[in-house]
Parts: sequence; C-alpha cells; structure tokens
Amino acid sequence: MKVLVLGGDGFCGWPTSLHLSDIGHDVTIVDNLSRRAIDLELEVESLTPIRPMGERLRAWHEVSGKDVNFVRLDLAEEYDRLAALIRDVQPDAIVHFGEQRAAPYSMRDEAAKRYTVDNNVRGTHNVLVAISESGLDTALVHLGTMGVYGYGWSGSAPIPEGYLTVKVPTPDGDIEREILHPANAGSVYHLTKTLDQLMFGFYAANDQIRITDLHQGIVWGTQTPQTVRDERLINRFDYDGDYGTVLNRFLMQAAIGHPLTVHGTGGQTRAFIHIRDTVRCIQIALENPPAKGEKPKIFNQVTETHRVRDLAQMISGMTGVEVANLPNPRREAAENELNVAREQFLALGLDPTTLSEGLLEEIRDIAQRYAGRADTTKIVARSTWRRGMETAPDLR
Amino acid sequence: MKVLVLGGDGFCGWPTSLHLSDIGHDVTIVDNLSRRAIDLELEVESLTPIRPMGERLRAWHEVSGKDVNFVRLDLAEEYDRLAALIRDVQPDAIVHFGEQRAAPYSMRDEAAKRYTVDNNVRGTHNVLVAISESGLDTALVHLGTMGVYGYGWSGSAPIPEGYLTVKVPTPDGDIEREILHPANAGSVYHLTKTLDQLMFGFYAANDQIRITDLHQGIVWGTQTPQTVRDERLINRFDYDGDYGTVLNRFLMQAAIGHPLTVHGTGGQTRAFIHIRDTVRCIQIALENPPAKGEKPKIFNQVTETHRVRDLAQMISGMTGVEVANLPNPRREAAENELNVAREQFLALGLDPTTLSEGLLEEIRDIAQRYAGRADTTKIVARSTWRRGMETAPDLR
Repeated sequence: MKVLVLGGDGFCGWPTSLHLSDIGHDVTIVDNLSRRAIDLELEVESLTPIRPMGERLRAWHEVSGKDVNFVRLDLAEEYDRLAALIRDVQPDAIVHFGEQRAAPYSMRDEAAKRYTVDNNVRGTHNVLVAISESGLDTALVHLGTMGVYGYGWSGSAPIPEGYLTVKVPTPDGDIEREILHPANAGSVYHLTKTLDQLMFGFYAANDQIRITDLHQGIVWGTQTPQTVRDERLINRFDYDGDYGTVLNRFLMQAAIGHPLTVHGTGGQTRAFIHIRDTVRCIQIALENPPAKGEKPKIFNQVTETHRVRDLAQMISGMTGVEVANLPNPRREAAENELNVAREQFLALGLDPTTLSEGLLEEIRDIAQRYAGRADTTKIVARSTWRRGMETAPDLR
Repeated sequence: MKVLVLGGDGFCGWPTSLHLSDIGHDVTIVDNLSRRAIDLELEVESLTPIRPMGERLRAWHEVSGKDVNFVRLDLAEEYDRLAALIRDVQPDAIVHFGEQRAAPYSMRDEAAKRYTVDNNVRGTHNVLVAISESGLDTALVHLGTMGVYGYGWSGSAPIPEGYLTVKVPTPDGDIEREILHPANAGSVYHLTKTLDQLMFGFYAANDQIRITDLHQGIVWGTQTPQTVRDERLINRFDYDGDYGTVLNRFLMQAAIGHPLTVHGTGGQTRAFIHIRDTVRCIQIALENPPAKGEKPKIFNQVTETHRVRDLAQMISGMTGVEVANLPNPRREAAENELNVAREQFLALGLDPTTLSEGLLEEIRDIAQRYAGRADTTKIVARSTWRRGMETAPDLR
C-alpha cells in the first residue's frame, strides 16, 4: 500500500511511519518540521536525543533495508504542492497527524490560539480538498482526540465510539436519531478536532471520501519495536509544561527526583494508550476503512483509564518521589468519572500494552537514561486557560 | 452604543449599518470589499447600481446628518489591525457579517472551497480572539444560517432555535441533555457556519464572550427605509448563479421575461425573510444579548417558509412568465417539509414584512427599473456539488 504520513516527524507520526514501512508499505513522510520549530520557540528539547530527518531515514535504511521518502511541505500553506504530491504518488491512504497537538500550547497566548486554528483547520481542509480534486479513492485516517467528547457529559453511559443514538421529541412521539457525539472541547486544540469532525462528515457525504477518525487518549511510552533498533531512530519524549503529557512527565520527574506535579485535585480521570498500541491501531484502521459513501468511521483509541492522582500515587510508591499539588491552570471539572467504549479495536485484534507492564521499563530505558538532558525550569505548566489564573513557581 | 459592523459593505451589512446609524448608534463599518472583488472575478455586477463606499457614506451624511466610519481591513489576514481597532474603538458590540456567504460559490472549485473555509473560519476566530485579548465586554452578534440544521432531520418537530433537548440512554435510564442542534451542512459555505457555532460555544464558556448567533433564512427584497432615501444608498441585488438567491432571482427573471429557473423538482421548502426584517432583527439581537458566561443565544431569523415551486407558480401567475425546470446542481433532498420555531423575535416585537406585501413593489421598484443592467449569461446556476453533475445551457 502507498501511504502518505502527514506529520510523520512527530511523536506519533514517526513511529507509525517506521511501523508501516516495517510491515511492507511504501511510506512517504510529509512534514513541515513545525514541532521542532516550536521546540526552538519554547527553548526546550525532547528528553530523548532525536536526530534530523535525513539521519533518521538513513539509519532506518541501514537497519531495515527499506526506504521511507520525505517531503518537507506545509499542509496549511502549500496547497498546490500537496495536491501535486497526491497526484504524483497516488496514495492508497493518507494518515494525518499533521496538526498542532498540545492543549496547553493552544491556550498559551493569542498567537498560539490563532496558529492552532489556522494551521489545523486549513491543513485538514486542504487534505480533504486535495483528495477530492485528485479523483482518487485515497482513504484518510486522522488522529482525533478523546477530548472532543468532554468529560462527564454522558452520565453513567460509556462514551460511545463517535456516534450516539438519542431520542428526539416530536409531536408524533420520540424519534431515534444517530448523531455525532456532541462536541465539548476543553481547549482551542480540542476545538480544532471538533471542527475536523464536521469537515469529515461533510466530505464523506458530498465527495465520498473514505475517512476514519481516531479519538486517541493520552499517549505514554516512547519506543516501538522499530524505534529501538538504533539510537538514531529514537522517538521524541516531551516533558515540558506545554507539550509534555501527564504520565510521561511523571516518569521523567520520578527519574530525576522532581516532585510529581498534580494540577488541581488530581481527580481528573483520563484515558491512556501506549505508543506501541498507537502504531498498531493505525495499521488496523488502514486495513479496515469504511466503504465509499459511508459516514466517517470513528474509533476510540484508548486502552485504559486512570485518575491522575492514582497514577501519581502509584509512581510515588514505586520510586519514593513525593507528589506536589499545584494550582490547575485549566478550566476543567476537578473530578470526573470516565467510561469509554473501546470494543472496535479489541475486536480487530489489538492486544494492549498495560501500564503495569511498561512503566518500569520506561523509567529505566528512557527517563533515567536521558535524565541529564532535562531542563527543570520547563516542567511546571504555565499556560493558563484564562488570563490571571494562578500558576506555580519552579519546584527545583 | 458603539458598534462595529464587520462586512458592512455587503447585502445585509450595508442596510444594517444605516439602520443602526439611523437609530442613533455610533457605527464603524469594517470590510475588505471582498464581495465587490468577487463580482470582478465572476464578471457580474449587482443589478442595482451600488456606489463606492466613500460615496455611500457621503450620501448618508447628506441625508441624515450622521457619520458612519469605514475601515478597510481583512478579518482573516490582518489580526493585528483588527485587535488594534477594537482597542481603539472599544465597541459595545460587534455585528459580524464578514464571511463568504454563497453556497454555490463555495462549491465552485477547489480555490473557492478553500477560500470559504480559510476566510470564514480564520476571520471568525480572529474576532473571538481579539475580543478576548481586548479584555472588553464587547457583545458579538453573528449572522449564521438556517442551513446549519439541514432539512428534514427533526421529523415532524419544528427546527428549534439552536438548541435541542434529547434523551440519552444510560444504564440508569434515559437522561435529558440540551445539545446544539446536530450540524447537517449542505455545502462548504454552510459547513463554515457549523464550525463557527462550535467556536462560539467554546469562547462563550472559556472567555465569557456574550455571543448571539442568528440562523437566517433566504433574504429577499433590496431596500430598507434608509437605503431608499437616496439612490446613492441603494443596496445590492444579486441575480447570478452563484450569489443570486432564489426569490430575488425569480423577481428579476419575471421583470425581464426570462423563464423562472427551478432546479430539480422545486419541492425544496426554504425559509425566507425580507431585508427590512433582517435589519430589525439585528437591532433586537443587539438589545437583548446573553449574560456573561451564558451559552450563545441562538435565534432563527426567518419569517415564513415556502416551497420553491410554489413561489415560481405564484410569480408566474402574477406576471405570465413561464417556469423552466432545470437539473439540480446541488446534492439535496428533492422534496422536504420545513417547520421552523421562530418565537423569540416575534416575542421581542418583530412585525414581519410578508411576501404578499412586498413582491410587487420589488418587481416594480427594483427588478423592472434596473432590468437593463442584467446579463442573461449569468443567470443559470453552473457551480455543481460534485464534478460532472449536469447543468443547463443559457435560456436566453
């Protein structure tokens, strides 16, 4: 299968590109290297020493004998080059990770809010228009987020995989309607993924594009069976206040003896998935596209759920590092339950990596090994959801 | 009240600006003149001889003694100037008409699709971010569209004003939830208004912006009590295949003896409102904003509904001009019922202009008077929803 991986230089995109290449697909990475540029802006680096794309691809060729192509291209700004690329490559599928993906960064300031909307909405729409213009039957697999659903909206019902059947009152009695789960975005970043969903619904119906949207939980872990094959293939690990995600940040904090930073009560329950399962899910989604003319297929790409304070306690218990309760810079419920439907990937063969299997390995092989690269002034979250919300000082 | 009217040079924006000035508000029009630029692109002109903005404003000053300000500015491209303008003017309210507003134009080709999304989403988001950045309590009134709801989705229930209470099944029995009416966009243009709604919900909650969204039907008529005061104040009248709307196009066709062009069966039922009522609705919306922290207030801005073929028969009966049934270039249901809740504006004092009052006046004062300016090669709709859909030849 010929596959374009948009955003193939990023945390999920890079290991997915290698996985798809490893199982025999002809992969072309498309990326504008924006994630590396944001590192420069934020004056922070991946904890792991990621290599430039050219070196990554040479290393992959050395260890696998396989070639992955790379095109540097901005999805939002360079439509004509994108359309030409699709015409030239004639991809069977496009995997779309090419969006600004951090909630705190998206709330950082006016420029970041505007960049997130402008980049994500225009980029995704350009991909849809370019597929339509090509006349090809290219399938699209897009990385969404569990954050489109909000937390607690469904009461005791599990969050369904994208669609919800509701009863609508009418003068002739209730009628059943299947709707896209109502959008409850918690940040400008999450908002863009709710906008993407509406664009997907329209282009699936009008242009008959075959689209799969993957509502992913918080990804943890770093390496996959491909990225461990050579240190030059190592995946990125973000721990800073804007791009770091909660579980990996705890692991890194544990490794350097920094207090585990819990924002608010820690009563937030969130969904998680290991990066090894992410790349498998993408493969499964590629192998099971919807039919032409069908509505977008939506999967919840999560394997377990945990309360943030429980994770902190677990890691504190394993490592002896204390927990620090900090002010919450986000507007969100202090406490929530979370019950997520996730039958589809399990039915299609996903065998999840659990926290209990992977946590110690991650602390040992990544967080401790690269601890010397950490900048402790970058750990505490400083982007606030509203002007004037309290943040904590550096803890070390 | 200090009011910015974004898109104040357009078909709804211009008469609204004059109405608000006439009742004593301090009005600043903000417009990039994009609608006039698209006329150049499409090689078509308003049937009525609209004047340049400078002449319009001089004429308004002559007849009313009032000054309306004008700032030429692109909402999507010139964020910094927009933010500075809001800081300088400190508006009590912003009325936002500044979006590409034609469904057929939005489906014309890849460039028009991309322009519609890029312009409308970025422009609206920039307005929200600029209000937030200003720290002011500026209220926002936005022109939406009835097209966000789709046609026929609600069964026998009237389309509610924005929000719908549904029953969601849970293990503990059904729970009631109020949701934004599910989006059912029929074109890329309508899609952008469904994206706007989600942005409004987020910024109303997170930034406590007071937002009103007006889901308007198809506007007919041309003049208001202000625009008739001098021919230099005349409002635009679009009749071409991309920007013309169905009822005004029938009136113009009747005036020049061109067959009344019904696309498909004419069984489409649509909602209508006279331009005189549009400007009154905007005034009512400005006078009744939601409170800070409330969800966006949504009104259905329509006064009556009609089936397209019934309108054609009515006008054919009045004028003797024949009806021509042409292929439908849109993807839409051939026939639909339409029942729209519209209690809010009526309760707040709107006294609608009905078709029976205004039709003959419109044919006499506008369509017949300016018939000599019509270009009959521009009448038939040529933008198709999918490549290869059939369109009709010119009929004259």
